[in-house]
This record gives sequence, C-alpha cells and structure tokens, in this order.
Amino acid sequence: MSRESVTGDAVPPASEVVTIADVNAAQRRLSDIVHRTPLDSSTTIARRSGASQVHLKLENMQRTGSFKIRGAYNAMAQLPSAVKNRGVVASSAGNHAQGVALAGQLLGIDTTIVVPEITPAAKIDATRGYGATVLVEGERYEESYDYALELADKDGLEFVHPFDDGDVIAGQGTVGLELLEAEPDIDTVLVSIGGGGLISGIATALKASDSDVRIVGVQPAGAAHAKPSMEADEIRMLSEVDTVAEGIADARLLEQTFAVVRERVDDVVSVSDSDLAVATTLLAERAKTVVETAGAAPVAALLSGALDVDGEQVAAVVSGGNVNLTEHGELTRVGLLQLGRYVDARLELDGWPTVLADVSATVEEQGAELDSVERVRKTADDTPNRVPVAISLEGSGPDHLKSVLDSLSQLDGVMVAVNSLDENA
Amino acid sequence: MSRESVTGDAVPPASEVVTIADVNAAQRRLSDIVHRTPLDSSTTIARRSGASQVHLKLENMQRTGSFKIRGAYNAMAQLPSAVKNRGVVASSAGNHAQGVALAGQLLGIDTTIVVPEITPAAKIDATRGYGATVLVEGERYEESYDYALELADKDGLEFVHPFDDGDVIAGQGTVGLELLEAEPDIDTVLVSIGGGGLISGIATALKASDSDVRIVGVQPAGAAHAKPSMEADEIRMLSEVDTVAEGIADARLLEQTFAVVRERVDDVVSVSDSDLAVATTLLAERAKTVVETAGAAPVAALLSGALDVDGEQVAAVVSGGNVNLTEHGELTRVGLLQLGRYVDARLELDGWPTVLADVSATVEEQGAELDSVERVRKTADDTPNRVPVAISLEGSGPDHLKSVLDSLSQLDGVMVAVNSLDENA
Repeated sequence: MSRESVTGDAVPPASEVVTIADVNAAQRRLSDIVHRTPLDSSTTIARRSGASQVHLKLENMQRTGSFKIRGAYNAMAQLPSAVKNRGVVASSAGNHAQGVALAGQLLGIDTTIVVPEITPAAKIDATRGYGATVLVEGERYEESYDYALELADKDGLEFVHPFDDGDVIAGQGTVGLELLEAEPDIDTVLVSIGGGGLISGIATALKASDSDVRIVGVQPAGAAHAKPSMEADEIRMLSEVDTVAEGIADARLLEQTFAVVRERVDDVVSVSDSDLAVATTLLAERAKTVVETAGAAPVAALLSGALDVDGEQVAAVVSGGNVNLTEHGELTRVGLLQLGRYVDARLELDGWPTVLADVSATVEEQGAELDSVERVRKTADDTPNRVPVAISLEGSGPDHLKSVLDSLSQLDGVMVAVNSLDENA
Repeated sequence: MSRESVTGDAVPPASEVVTIADVNAAQRRLSDIVHRTPLDSSTTIARRSGASQVHLKLENMQRTGSFKIRGAYNAMAQLPSAVKNRGVVASSAGNHAQGVALAGQLLGIDTTIVVPEITPAAKIDATRGYGATVLVEGERYEESYDYALELADKDGLEFVHPFDDGDVIAGQGTVGLELLEAEPDIDTVLVSIGGGGLISGIATALKASDSDVRIVGVQPAGAAHAKPSMEADEIRMLSEVDTVAEGIADARLLEQTFAVVRERVDDVVSVSDSDLAVATTLLAERAKTVVETAGAAPVAALLSGALDVDGEQVAAVVSGGNVNLTEHGELTRVGLLQLGRYVDARLELDGWPTVLADVSATVEEQGAELDSVERVRKTADDTPNRVPVAISLEGSGPDHLKSVLDSLSQLDGVMVAVNSLDENA
C-alpha cells in the first residue's frame, strides 16, 4: 500500500477549527435531540486487555444507529434560514446519510443524499424513511461525492461534509462530554478514525478539562493513514484501502481533522481484519451489542494488545451498529474460528453412513455442537473407497475442540484429514 | 398439547409470598451488586405495534447476561452464616446457573451447579468461570433437579430455586423498581413467563405504587401454561413443551409464583416461534441488542399484535441475552425470511454457466444482495438439460425481492422454480 503526500494549504491551528466552547454549544443544541447513550462496562474485555476497567460508550444505540446524527444536526441547525429553506445535500452510502436525513426531518430542512450505484436497496429505503431524497449516482463513492458538490453548486444547496467541518466535529465532540460526565477519571480513550471527525471532537472535549487523558485513534491496517500523517506532520494519503471495516475505509484525513488530530490526539494504532472479527464477536457474545466492524475497532485494539493499557481506566467508543445481519452472523462465525471455538474439518469415513452415527455420538458425548455435516465431492487425493464429509463443530475453546477431533480420529473408520485449528495455529 | 391440572396444597395469598417491602429491601441489598440496566426506546417497535412509545429494559446487559443474578443474590445474601458456610446447590443449564455462581463468588459461598448431560461445554465453562463446581448429572433437566435436591439433603446444602421462592422473586422485582424510577408513567409492562419468577417480582413492585398499570405475561405458544392456570384458578401443567425459547420452556407455574401471578398479573398472551424469530431479528437490527429468544418474547407480542397497546406507553422487559452466536445468526436469518427481506429460491438454468453472469448482474442492478449461489443436485422432476441452482437473496422487503425474482425469470434461459416468498405468503 503506497502512500502519497498531500501538499495543501498551510494547516490551521486546531483552535481555529473547533474549541471546547463549540462542543459545549453543540451539547446544548443536541440535548433534546440525541440519546445520551449508555456507558456499559465489560469485565471480559478488561481482563483480556489488562485494563483495570473498560467502559463502552455505546453510540451504536444512538438514533440512526451511529454518532453521525450529532455532527449533522449541530451543523445543520446553525445554517442561516435562507440556506435552510433551500435545503442541504450530502453524499454517503452509510451512517452520515441517515444522520443528515434525520437531522433534516427534525429541523424541517429538505435533504438530498447522493449514493453510489452499489448501495443496497435496504440502505436506500432506510434513508428515504427519514424523508430524504436519495439519488443514485456514480460507480464509486468519490463520484457520488463529486456529484453532490456539483448539485450544491448548481441548486444553491448547502453541502454537509461527513467530517471536515468544525460544526460537525463539535457535534461529535458531545460524545466526549457525556463520557466525562459519566466517568471523570478515564486514563485512555480509544476512538476509530476514518476521516477523523469523531476523534477530533472527542479529543477537543476531553483535553480541555484534562490534558493528561490519553486519546488514541484506531484504524484498520488496510486504511492506516493517520499515523503516517502525524509522523510526517503533513497529510498522507493511501493510494488504496482494503479492510472489512467499511465505515472507516478512508484514504486520508482532510485539513480540518488533520489540524485537530495532530495537536490533540496522542497516538494511533492499527488492527487487522481478524482482530476486528474477534472484537465484533466478543461484543455480541459478552456485551450483547451489535456493532459494525468500524465501531469494533477500539475494542479490537484492546483485545489484540496493540496498546498497553495495563491497570488503566479505559473507555472505548463503539461508534455504530448499522450492520447487515447476514454479514454480521458470518463475521461472528469467523471470530469464533479465530478464537478456536469453531472448527471446520474434513473427515474421511469408511463404511458410510454407519460411521456417521459414531461421529455424531462422540461429538455429543464431549459437549461439543455439530453445527453442520455435509457429504462433499471427492478430490483426486481421496482414497476411492472412503467418503469425504465436511463438518463444523463448536466448543469451548481450541483445547476442547482439539480433544474432540482426537476422539473422532480414534474412531474405527474415521480419518480427520484437515481442520481449521491447524491452519490457524 | 394436553394439559394436566395439578392439585396441590391450598395456594397462599400473594402477600404471604412477597411484598413491596421485600422488593425494596432487595434493592438495597443489590444496589452495589447489579447493573442498573439501560432503558432504551425503539421507534421502530413503537410504530409497528401502535404504541406511543416502547421502552426496552435491557436485562440482557445485566451481569451474567440476564436478570437471574438479582434473585439469586438476594436469596443467598439472606442465608444464615452456618448455611452460607456449607454452601448452596442449584440445577440449571442456563441463566440461573450463572446467577447463582456469580452470587456465590461475590458472597463467598461455595456453589454447586448440577447440569444435564446435553449441556454444551461452553456453558459449563462459563459457569465454572464464576467459581462454581459443576456436576453433570441426568439426561434431562428434571433429573438434574432431582439430583440437586438429593445433594442438598445429603450434604446439608441450601437449594436455590430458580423461581419458586419469595426472596428470589423479590430480587427479580428490582427490575420493576428501576423501570418505575426511569419511566413513572408506563401503561403496560410486558414480561416473559417461564416459571413466573420475574413477572411475579415486577408485578409486585409496580402494582404497589400504581394499581392501574397493566402487567402482561408473554409465553411461547408451545409452553403456554399460565393463561390456562389463571383461567382455571389452579395450576395447570403441560404434558409437553415445544418452543425455540429454551429459557422459558417450562411446563407450569409453582405454588409461590402461581399465588402472585393470579393476583397481580392482568393478562397473559402467547407468541409463535416465528414471532420470536422476527422479534430477535428486529432487536438485533434496530435496537442493536443481542437477545435470547426467551427475552424477545415481550417484543414478539408487540410486533405480532397479540396485545392491543394503541397509543400507550409500553415497557418490554428484555430478560436475557445468553445466546450461542451461531444459533442467533441462523435465527435472525429466519427472521429476515419471515419479514420477506430474504428469499431462498431454486432456479433452473439453460446454458450453464453463461446464464449465471446474467443472474448475478440482474441481482446487483436491482440493489439486492446475492448471499449464496450453489449448483445443486437434480430431482426427478428436473428437465435433464437444465442445471438447478439454489440462490439466496437479500433485499429491502417482499415487494423488492418479488420484483428481483420477476426480473430473473424474464432472463433468457432462467426459470424460477420455487421461492420461499410464495411459501411464506
């Protein structure tokens, strides 16, 4: 993944972009509009990360399913009435679309959202459900973005940027104020970075009252542009991004967010897509919360050891929960595979189907679950008089599943050919 | 499903089982022990049910993943020290096991949990994780229960009943006090009924301060014993239970819970397993919360129209979230099928694999998702020169998916043989 440097105008000081006064004003504007989302705590995640306590700020339970409503509403509420009357336009295939659409509904502002062609009908319907006009334009997000800018120009509509805007950043910062009010003694706060709006707002809110609090950004390894930019002290752009975390699959910071991040964010770490799958899985299983991969990144950083938080009071911002349930289910299965609690194996059986009964009984005796069994096609390597069968098992951990597979291989007429525990090991 | 009547001792008045004073005392005991769980609100569920507002009391976010810790701790905290020193025993393959185990850990009481042989290793590990001794005894739950009673007798251990106990009921009642404190003007509260402990506690808490509040129990159609018991004014027992909602798959109330339910519960409604799947799905997708089917029952009652709540302020108690993620993922897929947002179809293709490209392109053009494609075996009815293919599609609703299937059937060389939308219609 090559990096390009971006030479733009001189970067302004953070104080010219957004101040704590802006965030406080945003909180007043939003007080009857957004949910004060729960701050949960997770002993499992604390134990696995070495932190003394881990608090989860559940912005996935925010209206529209993510924090984006905060920034969109704060920016749109401050538009002059002539602009409000003409309407706003935005481009997004995701959470920003719903944030702008709901803010428009609440403020009585017409909203037009430009989405790329690949956007699923279900997402378009959700955005229309908040009263927005949705236009499908462009094969990729960048084209939708350009089209939205053209539309803004042509029809005199205000373009609502998803992050590179002081008012949007101030709105997102209200997450930080709520954190502070609920838990004043946080040592480290972890926040996902896509374009950097959320972390810019939160850092502004928290650093104003406690300059010792550590603000750490988290990015997927396949879209890790912020750290290089901070190190180079100029915006670096990735020529390519590749991550399961769609919501933060950005290639760069922009001027406003870079200005804030370089002054107010202490560090940025990155996580792999596997880390994201495991975090999404444990958030569902232990914290009982449905989180999109972008929102799971801070927890992924805690679980993967990307950051030392030993003995600390930690807050992880869970920024959104807008998932396709089918994909979420598949991702948590991958997480279980990573955790060694699920295994795919290929057996070769003598004496089909008699031996199948022994397999099934053995799995049950050992307290494992037989999630699937399927007779599969033979490969060139298979012994012609054996029947290949693909099975999936669930158990309490890799040791348990290994012992189940061992028992299976000791059965008469059963050979365990390959299994995913070995592959992951 | 035949019903047997149970003639037991005379049923005591509810006031002899549990009073509001008991619930208040439980709240003081539990104040530093349990989470005050969030009260979320869901506009989607409100709109679909006709209620003016629907509040979700998220006991799935309670410690151990369900409300059970409240009752177990409240009962165990009051044991005489000699009894505490000897230890307690309980039988459960589910949430009660973890509640008793954690309560024991917090109170310094040895706990022994008897579980049936079918209990997954993962559940046993979770219970051991709280420091309990787990004994695997009995093919069915009833045998584990009997064994636990024997053990209590033999070793002088206190048996902690999952629901038929005034102190346990008082502990569960603290859910009701928290509801009342957060939202004093509730018209109707919906609570799942298995053995009836949770609803007995909540009804006791709420009726004491507002006799007009309506307390409604919800049971799966396959374990609907409470309504017949209330109508007959004696405990009725089901000879068989059959439901996806394991956590409330009980066959009867017992004396203590029957005594409270018949005086303090206003009505009981039942829901189908399909209703439970849809509720679990919408709770995950809209409320971003992972709920076990037993805990989804109140929301299932709201969505299925089992109860008229038009214009009301409603609270639904989401009692637990201890799920196997693989099963949860499969259940939400069933929910999407029920909602007409997922379809399984069988196509017959001329000119394999060329036509497959047209199928794929058509699905994408229409904004649907192709979740799976598989070439399947021919049946006796299949035209020999066509290739049968099983596909799964996701879309925004039945109209959308019908139009995608129509477009597919208009392609050259594609016949849509069967699809699950027609079957569900």
